[in-house]
Amino acid sequence: MTSKSVAEQELHFLAVTKTSEIWRSISSAIMTIVDEAYFEAGPKGLGFRSMDPSHIALIDISWPDIAFEKYECTSTIKFGLKISDFAKIMKRANPNDLVEVNANIKASDNSLNIKTTGGYIRNYKMNLLTFGNEKSSPLPKLTFDSKMIIGAYTLDKIMADIQVIANNMTIETIAGKSAVTFSGNTDNGDAIIMVDTTNHNDGSDRKEKEDPLYTVQEVIVKENCKSAYNMDYISKIVRALAPSCDTITLEYSSKKPLRLEFVLLNTLKVQFFLAPRIDN
Amino acid sequence: MTSKSVAEQELHFLAVTKTSEIWRSISSAIMTIVDEAYFEAGPKGLGFRSMDPSHIALIDISWPDIAFEKYECTSTIKFGLKISDFAKIMKRANPNDLVEVNANIKASDNSLNIKTTGGYIRNYKMNLLTFGNEKSSPLPKLTFDSKMIIGAYTLDKIMADIQVIANNMTIETIAGKSAVTFSGNTDNGDAIIMVDTTNHNDGSDRKEKEDPLYTVQEVIVKENCKSAYNMDYISKIVRALAPSCDTITLEYSSKKPLRLEFVLLNTLKVQFFLAPRIDN
Amino acid sequence: MTSKSVAEQELHFLAVTKTSEIWRSISSAIMTIVDEAYFEAGPKGLGFRSMDPSHIALIDISWPDIAFEKYECTSTIKFGLKISDFAKIMKRANPNDLVEVNANIKASDNSLNIKTTGGYIRNYKMNLLTFGNEKSSPLPKLTFDSKMIIGAYTLDKIMADIQVIANNMTIETIAGKSAVTFSGNTDNGDAIIMVDTTNHNDGSDRKEKEDPLYTVQEVIVKENCKSAYNMDYISKIVRALAPSCDTITLEYSSKKPLRLEFVLLNTLKVQFFLAPRIDN
Repeated sequence: MTSKSVAEQELHFLAVTKTSEIWRSISSAIMTIVDEAYFEAGPKGLGFRSMDPSHIALIDISWPDIAFEKYECTSTIKFGLKISDFAKIMKRANPNDLVEVNANIKASDNSLNIKTTGGYIRNYKMNLLTFGNEKSSPLPKLTFDSKMIIGAYTLDKIMADIQVIANNMTIETIAGKSAVTFSGNTDNGDAIIMVDTTNHNDGSDRKEKEDPLYTVQEVIVKENCKSAYNMDYISKIVRALAPSCDTITLEYSSKKPLRLEFVLLNTLKVQFFLAPRIDN
Repeated sequence: MTSKSVAEQELHFLAVTKTSEIWRSISSAIMTIVDEAYFEAGPKGLGFRSMDPSHIALIDISWPDIAFEKYECTSTIKFGLKISDFAKIMKRANPNDLVEVNANIKASDNSLNIKTTGGYIRNYKMNLLTFGNEKSSPLPKLTFDSKMIIGAYTLDKIMADIQVIANNMTIETIAGKSAVTFSGNTDNGDAIIMVDTTNHNDGSDRKEKEDPLYTVQEVIVKENCKSAYNMDYISKIVRALAPSCDTITLEYSSKKPLRLEFVLLNTLKVQFFLAPRIDN
Repeated sequence: MTSKSVAEQELHFLAVTKTSEIWRSISSAIMTIVDEAYFEAGPKGLGFRSMDPSHIALIDISWPDIAFEKYECTSTIKFGLKISDFAKIMKRANPNDLVEVNANIKASDNSLNIKTTGGYIRNYKMNLLTFGNEKSSPLPKLTFDSKMIIGAYTLDKIMADIQVIANNMTIETIAGKSAVTFSGNTDNGDAIIMVDTTNHNDGSDRKEKEDPLYTVQEVIVKENCKSAYNMDYISKIVRALAPSCDTITLEYSSKKPLRLEFVLLNTLKVQFFLAPRIDN
């Protein structure tokens, strides 16, 4: 690519995490929309933003330097990799193993070095993708009429309940009311789940992961909203991030995009935008 | 189907069960022979009877009103549904969740409403199938020369032992003897399992489900019997009903059908008839 | 095959093992290279030797009479069987069930009788394969420049770590050093695992099976060695035998075959030879 006469300029990037779990979640999330993932690392942290090939969904990740065990990046570096190969490497480490990711970007050797511990030390080198004419997607500027906080496993369960009937989920909220209706319908029938801020649990001890709260929290409805979304996209990202993230902020407006916000490790923010299904 | 001039006559059907487990077992059993299942509900309870498309197997279910937590049906109602869709809905509930099934049969809206609890309330509506010219199968009138009681998991294990060699199982009983021989043979070899009323266990603690009794009980042989049956059909129904039913009554005669009787919840009776394999 | 005029000569073979586990391991190992397995039983024990169809791998099994619970064989008997069918029979027994294998070799009835206990008694008869012109493979006479002892699960994990990148594994050892380097590389990147005789574990309690030692032992390097091998073959036999065998002796030389030796039940020896990958 670069001719030998150009002075070699080596760029330094080092990111250490205490666990492989967080990388597993992030790579699983990215894999739901693209296989070739382009990251941008800068002095303040690591970022990723991309739409899926059909331009229906967008993921934006902002991973600040303070969320790493150790982070070093002297200038802005862009690098691309096959995210499924990266995910396979992360799956070989135990969830609590230390992970060191180290980019080596120079004209002659564009590669990412990954070192994971756990028993013995695994050293992987992944050759980086050459940049083509990837266009950066701007972050959509949207305001939303409805907002709620919902458990990741609760949302996952609601979708699985509706998926036995339909592929699209309609969300409905009414101004001044804290109940949210999730539903799906096809020619064969329909499914309706109504969730409010009251816990229907019977008082017995429950663990969030195995047995979610089955409630929504902080429902704010400025205006009545009703909108349908394809559950395939939502299910995949919710399942990818649920292990690292208890609750999700869900925002939407009638016949407008849905926004999910996942916060991992207190500071790492994943935003997910999904276009609505509009039937004529 | 019905012309608008006919007065709409709404029929009422309500069936509540304390658990979804029983519906899961019943729908799994029906799925082993048909996908479009036609039920008949009457004041005394719910019934189902159908043969498989090749007319080799028949399932008859008699679910009396007293076996339900609550049951209401003012007149006889027939309704048909895609049993695999119904089974998927039941699988979304936890085994111990309350299930309310409610048919709404009127000219303008033939549907089954299913409400399951567990965290939050799931409301499903399944559109019912239009009746075609389904013929009701009469219940075969048969007497049997051999009868035994056998654990559901024991029978399942015997069949799995024989299935490594053959698809058909020969059952053999001798008048005056309490031992039963189950066997299979092909050109590659044969498998023989002999089970009697003596427990071969070594006296250590065993749990029925993980480690069956490996015995038969109450073997009554009026006349020597030997007959072969296709295990695919038997395995599927035994596995469908085993979670809700400890023992099975097995009856057969030489070269005549086999009959299995499963009793669930003390009063719900499932009869299964299977034609013998007759090789020339 | 044999004309009726030849006097029938019955040969007797009986082998009893205390568990089905050992037969499961042995049949799984053989299945990694052939489906039609020819054994040779003699007064001193049972043997098996065969190459895979592409002549890249060879397995030699020497199972002495003393490793059996009971063993009887009056003269040398060769018999062949479909090893996958035999393995299925063994999988029906519980790992700790007694297994009795009994060959019945005579002109009119060539069969292997297998009796397994566990709840009830299972009697299987497998028809033996007719011998064709199977050539016996001689055992390769090789000396090796490097030798080490490695845990079966450790080697399995190392291969799984490398398999996310490559199908071939390069092993490298340096004279006088006890560290061993296992690596794989393709156009996409590379993976390097260095293992030495030091335990990297953090001192906490570990169970070998769930959490291997991650070390090599007794590394002896006469001369620097570096050689590549196809991991598919190695993975399969290591996984087949790991449940019955804690450690493996691994020997190899530069660009020469690899030899693995597994010792089961203290006396049963399985040798595995694999040709190196030689890239031009």
